[in-house]
Amino acid sequence: MNDMNAIEQWGIFEIALEGPQTGNPFHEVELKAIFAYHHRQIEVDGFYDGAGVYKIRFMPDSPGRWKYTTQSSCQALHGKQGEFTCIPVSQGNHGPVRVRNRYHFEYADGTPYFPFGTTCYAWIHQGDELEEQTLETLKQTSFNKIRMCVFPKHYIYNANEPVYYPFERSETGEHDFMRFNPEFFRHLEKRVAQLRDLGIEADIIIFHPYDRWGYASMDAEGDYRYVRYLISRLAAYRNVWWSMANEYDFMLSTKPMAQWDAYFRIVQEHDPYQHLRSIHNGEFEMNYDHTKPWITHVCVQHWDVKKVKEWRKKYRKPVINDECEYEGNIPLPWGSITAQELVHRFWIMVTNGGYAGHGETYLHPEDLLWWSKGGILRGESWQRIGFLQTIMKEGPDDGLEPMDASWEWTRVSGGMNGEYRIFYFGEHQPAAWSTGLPKGVEYTVEVIDTWNMTITLLEGTFKDAAEIPLPGKPYIALRIRPVKTSAKK
Amino acid sequence: MNDMNAIEQWGIFEIALEGPQTGNPFHEVELKAIFAYHHRQIEVDGFYDGAGVYKIRFMPDSPGRWKYTTQSSCQALHGKQGEFTCIPVSQGNHGPVRVRNRYHFEYADGTPYFPFGTTCYAWIHQGDELEEQTLETLKQTSFNKIRMCVFPKHYIYNANEPVYYPFERSETGEHDFMRFNPEFFRHLEKRVAQLRDLGIEADIIIFHPYDRWGYASMDAEGDYRYVRYLISRLAAYRNVWWSMANEYDFMLSTKPMAQWDAYFRIVQEHDPYQHLRSIHNGEFEMNYDHTKPWITHVCVQHWDVKKVKEWRKKYRKPVINDECEYEGNIPLPWGSITAQELVHRFWIMVTNGGYAGHGETYLHPEDLLWWSKGGILRGESWQRIGFLQTIMKEGPDDGLEPMDASWEWTRVSGGMNGEYRIFYFGEHQPAAWSTGLPKGVEYTVEVIDTWNMTITLLEGTFKDAAEIPLPGKPYIALRIRPVKTSAKK
Repeated sequence: MNDMNAIEQWGIFEIALEGPQTGNPFHEVELKAIFAYHHRQIEVDGFYDGAGVYKIRFMPDSPGRWKYTTQSSCQALHGKQGEFTCIPVSQGNHGPVRVRNRYHFEYADGTPYFPFGTTCYAWIHQGDELEEQTLETLKQTSFNKIRMCVFPKHYIYNANEPVYYPFERSETGEHDFMRFNPEFFRHLEKRVAQLRDLGIEADIIIFHPYDRWGYASMDAEGDYRYVRYLISRLAAYRNVWWSMANEYDFMLSTKPMAQWDAYFRIVQEHDPYQHLRSIHNGEFEMNYDHTKPWITHVCVQHWDVKKVKEWRKKYRKPVINDECEYEGNIPLPWGSITAQELVHRFWIMVTNGGYAGHGETYLHPEDLLWWSKGGILRGESWQRIGFLQTIMKEGPDDGLEPMDASWEWTRVSGGMNGEYRIFYFGEHQPAAWSTGLPKGVEYTVEVIDTWNMTITLLEGTFKDAAEIPLPGKPYIALRIRPVKTSAKK
Repeated sequence: MNDMNAIEQWGIFEIALEGPQTGNPFHEVELKAIFAYHHRQIEVDGFYDGAGVYKIRFMPDSPGRWKYTTQSSCQALHGKQGEFTCIPVSQGNHGPVRVRNRYHFEYADGTPYFPFGTTCYAWIHQGDELEEQTLETLKQTSFNKIRMCVFPKHYIYNANEPVYYPFERSETGEHDFMRFNPEFFRHLEKRVAQLRDLGIEADIIIFHPYDRWGYASMDAEGDYRYVRYLISRLAAYRNVWWSMANEYDFMLSTKPMAQWDAYFRIVQEHDPYQHLRSIHNGEFEMNYDHTKPWITHVCVQHWDVKKVKEWRKKYRKPVINDECEYEGNIPLPWGSITAQELVHRFWIMVTNGGYAGHGETYLHPEDLLWWSKGGILRGESWQRIGFLQTIMKEGPDDGLEPMDASWEWTRVSGGMNGEYRIFYFGEHQPAAWSTGLPKGVEYTVEVIDTWNMTITLLEGTFKDAAEIPLPGKPYIALRIRPVKTSAKK
């Protein structure tokens, strides 16, 4: 039963064991494994995968020799021992993402990670053809995160039945919340793995209120079982983030506030890798207290992107405004901003030391709206968001801190790191600029047209409060770098 | 000495008396008149106009016979009696502006007044040629208010000496703050009268910090003398509003907060007509408490126009955001927004039940920036602001109240009055709309392109939550009127 193949660092080592099929193996059989690396021990939950097969998945974080022993309430699964070799990473595998420099992110190998994500809530419930098209589209973009629901979605423009159901389902459509559907989860895992191979983080939305099947109104015990099962299956995927819910606050009547803390406790206790954790609000007041220690970063839904400095100050964690409204034209305010406006909001979030998320909601005769179903992108913001991402990657590894709180920098946006600066003027069209510049060094200035995606190096170098000539049109940014290190901070 | 000519209602009746020239007549001679209309008596301060001439100006508010008696510390000016006839108004004279319906304005004759003002702070200090050009330009626009300083201005793009000085000035440039310069004030009055004849309210800025002559740092007694003198000369002009200061909070080191209350007390006690009174902030926190009863309306400087509902709720008075940044291209955030952005901000202010002010700051080789010196308009927002004004005039006399505080209406803007609605979508481009519509009546819908200044009546009529087709582009507004009264509320 031991897999002796070499496993890549942050890859998945999987143990499969034969066991009983009688009773309800999902809940009646306890199974875990203790993985050991030198003197370090890591406890990992197993899960029942149907048809008498029990599995334990593990993501090793260090190259070298790993050993394990299983523990189970079932004799057939208990005391199994084995070992495997973890080998150094291959190209493109940087490990899971974690927080860096308080407000920013990096991969486990230290490579900076700047989240530029999109949203396809129910993309894994659309059938292979559309799902493969979604992956193909993602490959053309530079999005490195995607917000996606585990459960299927019932909402406007989302009337179709899913291909797979997460629980066993009778012919009359009744769900047995005591029995998971392994086929459903294998499909989810396949998509998560494909995202991983594209370098995309899967921001897994564990609960959401858009439901007609009863998944949003299971009782607390059912929810806890589901969260544990999900963790046991998915945590070993290095590209997983836990988004406890989308619009959790629209479910407070059935899932009161204390219950949300309980979900987080379960995730915190059972996820051996401590993947990133957050929760997404529906109301503008973010009533879930994001200062709670199990929240690794702040997930925001808010159109008013200039609040980013406030959120940073209040929570002192990375801020991702995953829903600063979507590019589109549906008859709802959250899904009808112009591409230019979404790009504008991205620039404001990012130059103020936060991050933002993309979504697209253009009406479609067959209700194929990217924001929910995936498919193809029809808009014009995604390319510009990719352009901004490139600029961030070329900037300081530790990310940007917002310019001070003085009056100028609430009107225009500026981010800095040492002598490095990015200014973004948005709806302002000054013919020149001379405020907030680095002092005492010679620097170069590039004029960035955020919409037309051009970068123009200004002739010569500048010093102190030099007057920098600008094109006098809106949506312009400046990249200011000290001469000695212009190539990279 | 009695002027027996008929005086129009809200016109100016002026008494001129010969008196002593010795000593300091500006301060050593007390003079007032009691005007009587039937049993009503109104006390009016007189002033010294130089060369031995003392004047008392009075604005009668009711047609009919008025009598007066002077009172003075000087025998030559005391006990003068007279009378005059006040005749009904001629066309275009609606009297002074006052508050209507808590958040809005009207003229004294009941005609609604929707403030759409501009800003030319120092226009009366530029010499006749430019000043007459400013008046000519104003005639071409529909601006009905102008923010203007009494004192000359020293600031960026404002280096020129004024033509007139408000105080007597020695050949070496020393000012005698004890002696006013009547010539200065006669010039000011001439300009105020010209504005009145163009139907423009003069929002008179009494103090401002942009100074090199010492006017901003007179002592308290000097300030009080000046405020009284100004009132005695200007209050009889029906188009006067009192703006206690521009950016009062940049003068707190020399004029502490309590002193600002004292200025208002003087104005409240000495202005017989209770012209509108407010004060303009520099800092984003409006630390002068606009709930104080002598503040008639809230004057705001703030780029964040979506706060208008907050300000209305907090102060429960009309809100005019006189400085929501200016159209222009100077290298400062407050003077470099695009024309489109300024028009956008006007629409947000107005559809949320507030008002906004215009200003233009395009760089000019001779520093002729409209915002300060007047001259000609070079921008593109003023025409669109006029277009919005026309729409407001065609709407309900009682003005607009913002749509409720629910989440939609913080993202898009909507104003209503009964079944009348104006929605403004701004950066949103929905292909259709069906929220917030009047219930139970048939209504017509017009699609307004706020930038191109077109109004397109949609075919047919609509009812309840009908889906209204929209052009799917930004900066669109809707005018929704019940069929029975489509022409006018």
